[in-house]
Amino acid sequence: MIAKEQHQELLAKYAEAVVRVGLNLRKGQRLIINNGASRGVPPAGREFIYAVTKAAYAAGAKYVEVIWGDEEMLRLRLQHAPADSFNEYPKFHIQAVMDMIQNGDALLSVYANDPDAFDGLDAERIAAMQRAHLTQYSPIGAQVSRNAINWCVVASSSPSWAKKVFPDLEQEEAEAKLWQAIFETTRATLPDPIAAWEGHIANLKVRAKYMQAKKYSALYYKGPGTDFTLGLPHGHIWGGAQSMAENGVIFTANMPTEEIFTLPDRHRAEGTVAATFPLSYGGSLIEDFSVTFENGRIVKVNAKKNEAILQKIVDTDEGSTRLGEVALVNATSPIGKRDHLFYNTLFDENASCHIAIGRAYRFTLTGGAELTDEEFIAAGGNLSLNHVDFMIGSPHMDIDGITQNGEREPVMRSGEWAFDV
Amino acid sequence: MIAKEQHQELLAKYAEAVVRVGLNLRKGQRLIINNGASRGVPPAGREFIYAVTKAAYAAGAKYVEVIWGDEEMLRLRLQHAPADSFNEYPKFHIQAVMDMIQNGDALLSVYANDPDAFDGLDAERIAAMQRAHLTQYSPIGAQVSRNAINWCVVASSSPSWAKKVFPDLEQEEAEAKLWQAIFETTRATLPDPIAAWEGHIANLKVRAKYMQAKKYSALYYKGPGTDFTLGLPHGHIWGGAQSMAENGVIFTANMPTEEIFTLPDRHRAEGTVAATFPLSYGGSLIEDFSVTFENGRIVKVNAKKNEAILQKIVDTDEGSTRLGEVALVNATSPIGKRDHLFYNTLFDENASCHIAIGRAYRFTLTGGAELTDEEFIAAGGNLSLNHVDFMIGSPHMDIDGITQNGEREPVMRSGEWAFDV
Repeated sequence: MIAKEQHQELLAKYAEAVVRVGLNLRKGQRLIINNGASRGVPPAGREFIYAVTKAAYAAGAKYVEVIWGDEEMLRLRLQHAPADSFNEYPKFHIQAVMDMIQNGDALLSVYANDPDAFDGLDAERIAAMQRAHLTQYSPIGAQVSRNAINWCVVASSSPSWAKKVFPDLEQEEAEAKLWQAIFETTRATLPDPIAAWEGHIANLKVRAKYMQAKKYSALYYKGPGTDFTLGLPHGHIWGGAQSMAENGVIFTANMPTEEIFTLPDRHRAEGTVAATFPLSYGGSLIEDFSVTFENGRIVKVNAKKNEAILQKIVDTDEGSTRLGEVALVNATSPIGKRDHLFYNTLFDENASCHIAIGRAYRFTLTGGAELTDEEFIAAGGNLSLNHVDFMIGSPHMDIDGITQNGEREPVMRSGEWAFDV
Repeated sequence: MIAKEQHQELLAKYAEAVVRVGLNLRKGQRLIINNGASRGVPPAGREFIYAVTKAAYAAGAKYVEVIWGDEEMLRLRLQHAPADSFNEYPKFHIQAVMDMIQNGDALLSVYANDPDAFDGLDAERIAAMQRAHLTQYSPIGAQVSRNAINWCVVASSSPSWAKKVFPDLEQEEAEAKLWQAIFETTRATLPDPIAAWEGHIANLKVRAKYMQAKKYSALYYKGPGTDFTLGLPHGHIWGGAQSMAENGVIFTANMPTEEIFTLPDRHRAEGTVAATFPLSYGGSLIEDFSVTFENGRIVKVNAKKNEAILQKIVDTDEGSTRLGEVALVNATSPIGKRDHLFYNTLFDENASCHIAIGRAYRFTLTGGAELTDEEFIAAGGNLSLNHVDFMIGSPHMDIDGITQNGEREPVMRSGEWAFDV
């Protein structure tokens, strides 16, 4: 357990890193804080939001606005609202974020969600509510996927999340331990978090540069339950940590981030890939699952828990049957080294190589932002209401790069980088 | 202290009375829950909001939406934001409520505010932020003041409010005691709250009918520090408890409510009136104050605490220098009989006769909803960004009605009704 004073100090350091490295908030910029998944930031995120707000005003923010939400309201709705009412949606949330994006404001997403928020509730109702959400939210997704403004996704501890991660601890102890895990993985516990982040970002850039120079045609994955190839399209761009937004600000979109990532070819994916971590999606946990691709398309899903929810994700639209992102993370990353799951993609995806089905990032393709939707798809990009990452890496995973000439080169062996930089 | 189970039961009964008597929510209607003063419902209101949400879905609501707020965010802004930034405003809150009003949805305002939220902060900054709020909020005020939809204002206990009302009690005990006070004054502790409300509403209607038949030209107030006359315009309508909204729903706009009220003539008010309760306004408490009128206009304010804030309210606009509502409550009303203040107008105004400066209700003038702004003003109505009630009644107050012939008749003596019905 951390003493209260020390906790406040770490919270302030974390918040400062989020504002200065994550968002790189500019003087005079406005900041909007949201969480799409729970229709606003859950109240458990309050303490952290206050710290971010102080850091933002200290960095010269003109105005900080929060869209607050409450998962219990969603639960009550799923339990008690009329069956035909799930198209109702708080459209003003969308307008709020879109107005601020159009004004060039920064966008922070704060997760403080309960991984089991919708546990035991009706899957049909959950899917209907989620579908309305994805449809309404897609204009924001489109703006974010083109980096219209500087944005960042981070997390705050929350009572239910902490208890999920550390079920054997008392409530208060679990929350303190989850905070400690967040502080450590976001480098807030280091003497100079800002400098540590600058060093870390430089390291990721070197890995991305190596992969960029290789211009691999495909990646081949081999591990327990996995025998899988995905294509990389012409013009794919490897990125890591930092991006430049259309408003000119260089930002770091995730904290923590341990990945380098690029665009897979939506037309080329073959074989079966097994998830190595559970997937927390919209209040439900999908466990022990695998996905089989043919000609780039998912033809089969299999899950020991919540297979119906996984199938519903894939059935959302055509783009949800195809890949939108591929990312490499070594299994002994600061998050991979930890001996527990987070049940939260922001963290678990940085413990492990992962892929995402659904919407691709325009900036992972050369000239991607200028293409029409049709041109983007023809070039290998993907469009969808969804962008769902899931984890496929482990210490038992080997990855080869397949060159334009069809030769195989080791990229990862037993979950670790197989090349020096 | 109330046992937890009993508390939940009372909360459910209170919520049901709010939904069925206050809002009279119709099957298939949507409900939006907000609190303008704190830019959304404070998190302290959560438990009560859940109870209201369950009651609303049980009554057939199609959808329940909450705009959540957080007074601490306002405090941080007042402390740290740039001085020239207070025109920034979460406009999406306004759009959200306006969209739902235009759709014919019901509107519930839930107070769970800290009466001292802005204690010790800069009065200029508070006034600048408040002014932006009132300006942005005025379209909603205009819709509510014409009863465009069924609406209701109620309260939830909150930690800081409870401690203000019961400063000598331990935190938990203070909250339980404030809940008990809310339950008692909203009749939730009675065996059948719905039936009790029906009886109470009928009683208020009989008082209003008596006053309506009198068609007094003016009311004269005499008490300690008070020697005051206000005019009542031709066509003034006495109301109590229930109104009919433009969407056809008969609703009860405040819970609790002990008042009958009508439109004062903005052109006729003379003399000095002393407040008998402190006024909690936008996070500050104005205490021991009086207001002096000449020709309907406030020419002088005097307050022992926060006179500057009182003066700023009056200086907001021309309409803030004149009256918009007059209400009669006997001093031994269920709230007047209690031995403590609530530091919240919703309750304190129902302990005491009161008047409001600022915006008048269109429905308190015959044909008021059809008049242009100019015609409404000419007829004695008032327009303003503000509508601020303050309490002037006490067991030492006498009120006379002045007939069209200039005769005086007793309306109240020593704070009690002076006529039988």
